[in-house]
Amino acid sequence: MDIYEESLALHERLRGKITVELKEDVGDDAGLSLVYSPGVAEPCRKIAENPEYSFQYTWRGNVVAVISDGTAVLGLGDIGPEAALPVMEGKCFLFKKFADINAVPIVINTKDTEEIIKFVKQIAPSFGGINLEDISSPRCFEIETRLKQELDIPVFHDDQHGTAIVCTAGLINALKLVQKKPEDCVAVVSGTGAAGSSIIRMIKDLGIQNIYAFNVAGLLNRDYLPEGTSVKDQETAWLTNNDSEQLTMEEAMAKADIFIGVSIKDRINGEMVRSMHANPIIFALANPEPEIEYTIAKANGAAVVGTGRSDYPNQINNVLAFPGLFKGVLSCHANAITEEMKLAAAQAIAGLVSAKELTDEYVIPSAFDDRVVSVVASIVAKKAQELGLARKL
Amino acid sequence: MDIYEESLALHERLRGKITVELKEDVGDDAGLSLVYSPGVAEPCRKIAENPEYSFQYTWRGNVVAVISDGTAVLGLGDIGPEAALPVMEGKCFLFKKFADINAVPIVINTKDTEEIIKFVKQIAPSFGGINLEDISSPRCFEIETRLKQELDIPVFHDDQHGTAIVCTAGLINALKLVQKKPEDCVAVVSGTGAAGSSIIRMIKDLGIQNIYAFNVAGLLNRDYLPEGTSVKDQETAWLTNNDSEQLTMEEAMAKADIFIGVSIKDRINGEMVRSMHANPIIFALANPEPEIEYTIAKANGAAVVGTGRSDYPNQINNVLAFPGLFKGVLSCHANAITEEMKLAAAQAIAGLVSAKELTDEYVIPSAFDDRVVSVVASIVAKKAQELGLARKL
Repeated sequence: MDIYEESLALHERLRGKITVELKEDVGDDAGLSLVYSPGVAEPCRKIAENPEYSFQYTWRGNVVAVISDGTAVLGLGDIGPEAALPVMEGKCFLFKKFADINAVPIVINTKDTEEIIKFVKQIAPSFGGINLEDISSPRCFEIETRLKQELDIPVFHDDQHGTAIVCTAGLINALKLVQKKPEDCVAVVSGTGAAGSSIIRMIKDLGIQNIYAFNVAGLLNRDYLPEGTSVKDQETAWLTNNDSEQLTMEEAMAKADIFIGVSIKDRINGEMVRSMHANPIIFALANPEPEIEYTIAKANGAAVVGTGRSDYPNQINNVLAFPGLFKGVLSCHANAITEEMKLAAAQAIAGLVSAKELTDEYVIPSAFDDRVVSVVASIVAKKAQELGLARKL
Repeated sequence: MDIYEESLALHERLRGKITVELKEDVGDDAGLSLVYSPGVAEPCRKIAENPEYSFQYTWRGNVVAVISDGTAVLGLGDIGPEAALPVMEGKCFLFKKFADINAVPIVINTKDTEEIIKFVKQIAPSFGGINLEDISSPRCFEIETRLKQELDIPVFHDDQHGTAIVCTAGLINALKLVQKKPEDCVAVVSGTGAAGSSIIRMIKDLGIQNIYAFNVAGLLNRDYLPEGTSVKDQETAWLTNNDSEQLTMEEAMAKADIFIGVSIKDRINGEMVRSMHANPIIFALANPEPEIEYTIAKANGAAVVGTGRSDYPNQINNVLAFPGLFKGVLSCHANAITEEMKLAAAQAIAGLVSAKELTDEYVIPSAFDDRVVSVVASIVAKKAQELGLARKL
């Protein structure tokens, strides 16, 4: 059996990877009259006085909704809500396993931006945080932005920011290894969708000097934006390609220290890697097949190579970020996840690899490094406190 | 501490009465690549081919949404979605404890009928069934009716039908005890809202000869409907008061064998009970204080008295119905809960009290009788098969 057949067999056997359980079995009739009618009226009355108490008297303080419309699922694209459910359930599995956070998979029957925003606002009183997942670009930007403005619980689109945080963490360490400062580096980013656009913003915040951002139409250039360029790509164009150059991928790579791909397999080749500045860093994150094979990139002189795969060193894996990030905001009852928190999380993840341990095959901790969640959670909670966003009851 | 203080303390300590857990901890990296990326792509692909497979490869086949807008919570009324959360969580607790069904509390931020219908339709692909809860009348009727028409998973408003099923079960046995046939009986029902309207329909299906239905304005009379009478009450008027009589509660009681109250405390008194036909049956279900005290009803000649309370005999408790009912429809993947299934459930619950055991203090099994769920589930699944509604994969 290959991994797909094995996964199907597992799903058929389990018929659900998660369950709902009683936190404590109160057992008898007297117990039931505490968890349910009539005793339950008392926490209800308290919360009616102040809805914030819902975080104290219910599971709301430790439960996240993993919400998807099924339009951008893994590499499969728009497969619909039912077909997205195994992924959302898997995500909830990861939330529990890594951070002991309760998470509920919610797949919805609409692709309309306004309808999705309304839906999430309607369901928000049930949850302590919202993890948006596998919603296709460019709708995902409008949806996340609006919900962050209109809700007072944390909203996080993991496909954008989860990848960006972990990628930035890896980049921080890779730069240490090759002894370059961000301010001295030029990067090529292939893919300006959900992940790419967020990566571009984070590495710019990190200090990268110039970024060449490629979408399917080519290099973004604020002076020559093709008709139909998305609002997000227009914004990205103003953050990148400082001198409005017109370059092919080959030409841009020859000017770069860093390549980050969140696009398609075989987007770059060995020759391009060889043309880069000394000690190039290659994060080829297309899944399951990267923009360039790990071994080919190394053979052509890459100093550090990261991929999305677990069978090579330096796996850029979202699970390093979202569990700790949500644990942090839930623990202090913060009402948002900000840029500062995300960058702090990236730095904290990077910091787990000590200078002594740092090698070209170890720039990012393993997903199973059990320090990760607590370190990320505590720095995020600290940032929330500093920013005045924590409302700990 | 009274029961309310004790419940508040319990809620504060638990901070959530339910949790999400891993069904099986797959542990290592290889395991994660089966429950999540990349292996999970395979069940996704299968479900994309046929969304029905979502019941086979995910938890959908055994998960119910408990959905409320917080408008009719216990005796507290419209307290808002956050304040309703302890009750919905409690309901999910009962689903798990009694039927091993996963249930998720969903409280929503809208009271608009059309918005609620749309919301539930949007969320439906995430769940195997929908339990509507504590949605105020008359909106609850339109919402349930429309959702039953428009969704292909079971939709059930427990406040209507849960109470009706258990009340009918108790009535079946009470009638046996007093050796009366439904066809020979007249009933008074006080309260024509969610529970009352459903009780009226079920006991009419059972064969009760004539029913006097009282709402706050008095006895429903199809020939004299006050302006502003709800559509549901208009329909109920056509099912009741066969001869369009104009009666007070006192007058109606003097013509009745059965009183069923789902209204307010002290709605009837001992004198009215004494005026009823021989061996009257009194189900006074207002909570926490019944339409007449158990002991007063008995002292005034009631043959059988039932209440909603656990501190008197014959507790009419919804938990006797909804866990088994949902277990039945989920087990055979039925796409609806019909009148036939509900009546069969009532008969099955009644059947658990043998002729030999039947007394005026035992017309309905205990909520902790562990035969209840399996008996109800199996009769409901059998009915679903007979009706051609089962789609077992």
